[in-house]
Amino acid sequence: MTDTVHDGVEPLDFEGWVCPVPLRDTGSVMMGHGGGGAMSAELVEHLFLPAYGTAASSELGDSAVLGIGAAGTRLAFSTDSYVVKPMFFPGGSIGDLAVNGTVNDLAMSGAVPLYLSTAFILQEGTALADLGRVAEAVGAAARAAGVRLVTGDTKVVDSASGDGVYLNTSGIGLVPDGVDIGPRRARPGDAVLVSGDIGVHGVAVMSCREGLEFGTAVESDTAPLHGVVADMIATGADLRVLRDPTRGGVSASLNEIARASSVGIDLVERALPVPVAVRDACSLLGLDPLQVANEGKLIAIVPSGSADQVLAALRAHPLGRSACRIGTCVPEHPGMVVARTGLGGSRVVGLPIGEQLPRIC
Amino acid sequence: MTDTVHDGVEPLDFEGWVCPVPLRDTGSVMMGHGGGGAMSAELVEHLFLPAYGTAASSELGDSAVLGIGAAGTRLAFSTDSYVVKPMFFPGGSIGDLAVNGTVNDLAMSGAVPLYLSTAFILQEGTALADLGRVAEAVGAAARAAGVRLVTGDTKVVDSASGDGVYLNTSGIGLVPDGVDIGPRRARPGDAVLVSGDIGVHGVAVMSCREGLEFGTAVESDTAPLHGVVADMIATGADLRVLRDPTRGGVSASLNEIARASSVGIDLVERALPVPVAVRDACSLLGLDPLQVANEGKLIAIVPSGSADQVLAALRAHPLGRSACRIGTCVPEHPGMVVARTGLGGSRVVGLPIGEQLPRIC
Repeated sequence: MTDTVHDGVEPLDFEGWVCPVPLRDTGSVMMGHGGGGAMSAELVEHLFLPAYGTAASSELGDSAVLGIGAAGTRLAFSTDSYVVKPMFFPGGSIGDLAVNGTVNDLAMSGAVPLYLSTAFILQEGTALADLGRVAEAVGAAARAAGVRLVTGDTKVVDSASGDGVYLNTSGIGLVPDGVDIGPRRARPGDAVLVSGDIGVHGVAVMSCREGLEFGTAVESDTAPLHGVVADMIATGADLRVLRDPTRGGVSASLNEIARASSVGIDLVERALPVPVAVRDACSLLGLDPLQVANEGKLIAIVPSGSADQVLAALRAHPLGRSACRIGTCVPEHPGMVVARTGLGGSRVVGLPIGEQLPRIC
Repeated sequence: MTDTVHDGVEPLDFEGWVCPVPLRDTGSVMMGHGGGGAMSAELVEHLFLPAYGTAASSELGDSAVLGIGAAGTRLAFSTDSYVVKPMFFPGGSIGDLAVNGTVNDLAMSGAVPLYLSTAFILQEGTALADLGRVAEAVGAAARAAGVRLVTGDTKVVDSASGDGVYLNTSGIGLVPDGVDIGPRRARPGDAVLVSGDIGVHGVAVMSCREGLEFGTAVESDTAPLHGVVADMIATGADLRVLRDPTRGGVSASLNEIARASSVGIDLVERALPVPVAVRDACSLLGLDPLQVANEGKLIAIVPSGSADQVLAALRAHPLGRSACRIGTCVPEHPGMVVARTGLGGSRVVGLPIGEQLPRIC
């Protein structure tokens, strides 16, 4: 890393770690526009937001918190489409992924998830048995998460135009009074926590992808996180920011937080909980575990003084047993994430540009 | 029509107009499962609801009305995916269709639509210019309908696995106090109203479909109907049932109402407002205008004594100028829709089985 990292240069223009995204140059949609990295962000900023104009809220994020009705009721509202391939993978399927993913988007605003919709786009010729198994996984995951499936839709496209099952879930949750969690609230000095091992979901899906099969015992970590979040809220600590690092991995989530809050984030490389099997698979494929998708982990930014208390709450929950502190928010290099290596060096952890491998969720 | 129509036979078994749907026999997903007719209903009843189990509400309909928070706040929540082909058609595009369609699903429960999500599944290689035009149509339609776009998602699938643009919109609305509109509330004696010409959207899309091109001046009727609904509510009349007859057309909507309310519905064939161009196109293609999709029309079931008052409110609105009464709910043939022809005869108006032409919305 060079000294210029600390100069406060607008991160998107920083030489070497993220190039200006060629949105206007590509002319057409590229796989990377769906990867959750810089290209996805640019598509929202440079295409959707200008096109939507005054009809759009300024962020169009993973979920929105909305005042509704009388008496200060605050809703969380979220949507996500799932196109994971294959639709069944070690540890889960597109069905539980779609339920847990939207439950988690709601939970990251502190909301109690209540209601989900399911909208299927089916390819003609998909086996009804497969669809049934997916639907059963949806039902089981909804029961496990305590949410109700209240409305739905099914479309079918001809066999040349689809790919098995695409599933959109949208969700509504209720944000408890007094809870105020959001990506702009990180402050220098805050601790950066992660609820457990990273990179697991992405490696599990890649391991069974056509043409890529490699032996690994890794199973997807898909799980609903609102119970963990409730336990964290119950500590009374000021939860500044929560994020589930899905597409683009921990790296994309931390970069977004660093930019939204205008803080730098310093990670302690050796503190990152990367399982051996994930590290091995990433070496094999030339991937950075920080950029690999998770589906059952969260990142929490909390005041340093509350870190131990929140970590204790995380570790007391079955889904947070390996929680640990991985870094600190700093006033230097705002908008940028830097990993401190064991040898006293450091490297910039960039926002991924496109995606490592498509259709991981 | 034979006498047995009046025997109260379970409609699905009625010989000749709708066969038992071969859900278990097809083995795989067929185009008709997405058509909004009997096969769609069977997929929900025989696959999704059993698979979802206790996690699902009993209906999984186009929209759900949910109590939330304190003070009796009632939300309407709806989801719909759009896969219309081509994505631009006379009178509109997948963008305004997706906004208006979800706005209308909310409006049919009497709700004031407030917030929408947009979730795109894009085919790699789709021109960004086309995507931009679709997104602009989304923005313009949202402004016209007075709803805010608050959360979104974008996924990209490889060029072999998609077909341009698929767009899911989900929406939240607020149901005013005292409003109670639902498919089970039709009663014998109630009037059946329609807000204008039928079959327009379907014919407009078909007219430009590859391999089908035929000359017609018909443009899609895509429009947001919540303003019309508000005017109807303001009359103080007891609005029993509202439906927007999209996939499966007026026929599917009336059959669903007849079954849900256990009433018969008698239509006056010559009262049906079918434009000449729609009638001509339907003759050409061998279609029944009652089964062709609409995207800016509603059906209202109201007490007979309120019919004139509600019709006056409809006709005073630009989107309801050609509103008319097309029939009556009757105690005979419960669950069944019968059209009385000009010659004193009658015919059963069946729930469509699959769909006439796929991907009309």
